[in-house]
Amino acid sequence: MYGHQSVRLLPDDYPQFFDRASGAYLWDVDGNRYIDYMCGYGPNLFGYGQLDIDAAYIDRMKQGDTMTGPAGLMVELAEQITALVTHADWAMFCKNGTDATTMAMMIARNHTRRKTIVLAKGAYHGAAPWCTPLRNGVVPSDRAHQIFYDYNDVESLEAAVREAGDDLAAVFASPIKHDTFVDQQDLDPAYAGRARELCDETGALLIVDDVRAGLRLARDCSWSRVGVQPDLSSWGKSIANGHPISALLGAEKARAAAATIYVTGSYWFSAAPMAASLATLKMVRETDYLERTQILGERLRSGLDEAAIRHGFSLRQTGPAVMPLIMFDDDPGLGKGYLWNDALMKRGVYFHPWHNMFICAAMTEKDIDDTLQASDEAFKIVRDAGAIPPVEKLAVLSKLTNAD
Amino acid sequence: MYGHQSVRLLPDDYPQFFDRASGAYLWDVDGNRYIDYMCGYGPNLFGYGQLDIDAAYIDRMKQGDTMTGPAGLMVELAEQITALVTHADWAMFCKNGTDATTMAMMIARNHTRRKTIVLAKGAYHGAAPWCTPLRNGVVPSDRAHQIFYDYNDVESLEAAVREAGDDLAAVFASPIKHDTFVDQQDLDPAYAGRARELCDETGALLIVDDVRAGLRLARDCSWSRVGVQPDLSSWGKSIANGHPISALLGAEKARAAAATIYVTGSYWFSAAPMAASLATLKMVRETDYLERTQILGERLRSGLDEAAIRHGFSLRQTGPAVMPLIMFDDDPGLGKGYLWNDALMKRGVYFHPWHNMFICAAMTEKDIDDTLQASDEAFKIVRDAGAIPPVEKLAVLSKLTNAD
Repeated sequence: MYGHQSVRLLPDDYPQFFDRASGAYLWDVDGNRYIDYMCGYGPNLFGYGQLDIDAAYIDRMKQGDTMTGPAGLMVELAEQITALVTHADWAMFCKNGTDATTMAMMIARNHTRRKTIVLAKGAYHGAAPWCTPLRNGVVPSDRAHQIFYDYNDVESLEAAVREAGDDLAAVFASPIKHDTFVDQQDLDPAYAGRARELCDETGALLIVDDVRAGLRLARDCSWSRVGVQPDLSSWGKSIANGHPISALLGAEKARAAAATIYVTGSYWFSAAPMAASLATLKMVRETDYLERTQILGERLRSGLDEAAIRHGFSLRQTGPAVMPLIMFDDDPGLGKGYLWNDALMKRGVYFHPWHNMFICAAMTEKDIDDTLQASDEAFKIVRDAGAIPPVEKLAVLSKLTNAD
Repeated sequence: MYGHQSVRLLPDDYPQFFDRASGAYLWDVDGNRYIDYMCGYGPNLFGYGQLDIDAAYIDRMKQGDTMTGPAGLMVELAEQITALVTHADWAMFCKNGTDATTMAMMIARNHTRRKTIVLAKGAYHGAAPWCTPLRNGVVPSDRAHQIFYDYNDVESLEAAVREAGDDLAAVFASPIKHDTFVDQQDLDPAYAGRARELCDETGALLIVDDVRAGLRLARDCSWSRVGVQPDLSSWGKSIANGHPISALLGAEKARAAAATIYVTGSYWFSAAPMAASLATLKMVRETDYLERTQILGERLRSGLDEAAIRHGFSLRQTGPAVMPLIMFDDDPGLGKGYLWNDALMKRGVYFHPWHNMFICAAMTEKDIDDTLQASDEAFKIVRDAGAIPPVEKLAVLSKLTNAD
């Protein structure tokens, strides 16, 4: 198994293959049911198998899906998504989040006729040679013209921009700091504002990579929460509730550059995922999913904090409540976290020890309360285990980096 | 419109948006019906909306599609596709053809710990910065470590391999020469055999990019027709009859290198396209689609040749009969071709003037005969037009190149 869904770096007993999914639940091939806090690593926003969205997919599929040209609803989807996202004046659709971030890089270079991109250390922007977190199969020229800064750190960003000099094509930024293995951080408005200023001063494009967090923090680009608008934003995962489509959205000033790069893919113009995305955007506009997942996330967070204290532990619950990362204090080798996650998994709760999780709109208060009850037993197990050694399989992590 | 489905470089009246597709037919948004010889630029092998394949997709979608891990049928699909393709001992699934060719490059570099790849001039291997045919947004380092040779030319290939010296990681090859704007060429067995020898001598990996032609020329890798087995082959388009999945297949010796690169995508592990691919492979094994499309393609080819001669024209019909490219002799500016294609389009036949076309298994002898009848009228129009100027919009082509 390759990629982000490999369980190689998860606790030993985590299931690799799943049989079935419905709403907030997942069943592995041995028939065990889980409340799934990974949501397909992001795509599941309104529940697995959401009926309206899937019906839109099936209806459009029967009418014509992957054809010799797009269906008219490609225009409708472009109009609806640019109406939702403040900074966006145009849209391009693709398949992978990596497609969208790679297009963003190409458009910025084409727009500015410059080469250098500035990125936050440890941020994930996809798995192509220019950005994949592991260096195997990557050659140094794949990573040429890249300068790294510390997320949320204005001085570090300024230094990177200074280093790029007159070759700065783009500043890449995640919507929040949602790196793996470390605490998450919400966006610092001072950093966001300064990134905008620096791009305006230099003529570079500001790119927010909203593939993972898009539609989970706002019904708009995630940076709209602090009033900062990027020039380009990349989207995927939740925009069609799991059906295969991603998107790059852009401001008017980048339109000409976007129109003159050559990017494409066999299924980029398929109609069925676009129909599913239209149905998803309707639910985004017309339901209280954003507020509801927020409340559920806070219920989980406060409940876990209470349970932890009761058992003598202290948790670091970082990031937005709808995209929680939960780690133990005093657990540098992640031993406690692995044992706790493993115990939860065996009690029907699918948590992740080092990647942010997701709350979906199909979850209920009862799901959260069931999770809290399972966590209580899991805390007991960790407490009874006493001293726990570091997780051996994580030694491989020394190789995982996207910054030099 | 961006990408391969933009009609920007097609005759002016070609429709950009389609409403509906069924079997061998396509309807544009104005309700005009076409016999579609583009087949979605390849994916449509068994007919648009093929019922068994689509039912497999829908059933699996309802059970669980994009989940937190793959379904068990990922293993089944890997087993079935490696059983079909002689050289393949393992499979990795992805979304774009470009994903598969990029993975092939990374695996070859990881396997050999070398950098240089050798490619045929003018061959299309995708639309990422390292391979996209247009240079806008691409920087020179994206194209580092690339050496080009002439397809089917043993001496040219040998020179490129010599130039790579001890840094040769891979030789890329198309299954046939199916470049745009120029005559196609079938594979020369001497070239294929020498490519295999050179890779064996140097330890480089031989990669056949079967994304476009896969399953159309053989129920195996296309190079199996001349008895040459690559180390890696990329697949897509027809392997799920239009549902979004592509694949990289590899030989045992490349397994370790494949297992240690980090590649992934949000929807790469989705179950529904894998179910559709299993249903497609069943039809590949159990029907005479390969022989039938061959007969239909030959009927079209000989009928068009006869009609052309009758009207005083001479055609260059190149490539395999199931993937025809049709151009006029004495038509360097493509004026005749554009007029002829436009006339066909207006008579319900969707041909392409400079990209290979496809015969699908849903076509019938009557479709071919209707096409021939329409072509007769189209030839008359070209004959009556007299001298035709070169196509102005193709001036942009001077920019289209993937070789230095």
